Amino acid sequence: MPYRIAIASDHAAFAMKAELADWLREQGNEVFDLGTSGPESVDYPDYGYLVGHAVASAKAEFGVALCGSGIGISIAVNRVPLARCALVSEPFSARLARNHNDANVIALGARLIGIEMAKACVMTFINSSFDGGRHANRVDKLSHPERSKP
Amino acid sequence: MPYRIAIASDHAAFAMKAELADWLREQGNEVFDLGTSGPESVDYPDYGYLVGHAVASAKAEFGVALCGSGIGISIAVNRVPLARCALVSEPFSARLARNHNDANVIALGARLIGIEMAKACVMTFINSSFDGGRHANRVDKLSHPERSKP
Repeated sequence: MPYRIAIASDHAAFAMKAELADWLREQGNEVFDLGTSGPESVDYPDYGYLVGHAVASAKAEFGVALCGSGIGISIAVNRVPLARCALVSEPFSARLARNHNDANVIALGARLIGIEMAKACVMTFINSSFDGGRHANRVDKLSHPERSKP
Repeated sequence: MPYRIAIASDHAAFAMKAELADWLREQGNEVFDLGTSGPESVDYPDYGYLVGHAVASAKAEFGVALCGSGIGISIAVNRVPLARCALVSEPFSARLARNHNDANVIALGARLIGIEMAKACVMTFINSSFDGGRHANRVDKLSHPERSKP
């Protein structure tokens, strides 16, 4: 800490996004809130791509992506080749995502977990490190599919 | 049922993959086992791409992708634009992934959930349908990022 953190959500998760953004700022992080900012219906892919590009362009070190289940926005983030988004619902997976996958975006389902679990996941995520070693070549393949030989 | 189902895993999940493949075949599905087939260390992206391409090419209607946490392989599958992979750990999310996101691949963490929970997730996934309606345009954007306007 502190980190530059991009955060975005669809309408199903805008309240959790606002609370997480405030909380991350209180801890000294620089937070880029990429929307949405109200309950009007929007399309989660639009916001997933924004988070993906924020980490891919190094505007942010980490991203937080939220929708109702976390599923749709996690798919969208992972369309961006340099983004590595982990959908999690508990801190153990949040840690593994950093240790093994060097994930740079965490996705959460605002209608599936509560705010304190969400905070625990985000906290664990940004405070965990990539293990490197045997995991490095695999992570490299996630950004360079052409290096994968079936 | 029956469906054509592609299944693949890394070494951390090959035993669960074999058990799920047998179980899906017993129910009359056609199962394409894309490996890996033993405990030798492999790279999960290689197997995630295989599952993604199997559904993208319509060789299979559904895919099942497994690794230790499910995180790494779910990222890999979602690099394939026509694949929509949901990482889940319980059946409610498996159903939402079909209802709202028209997910065609389910990812599971073989070191995080047990075989009966895995079966319940897969069963719910392949027996649930896409709701269409307001979700259709969002799903379309997942395969066509250029249609997303930030």
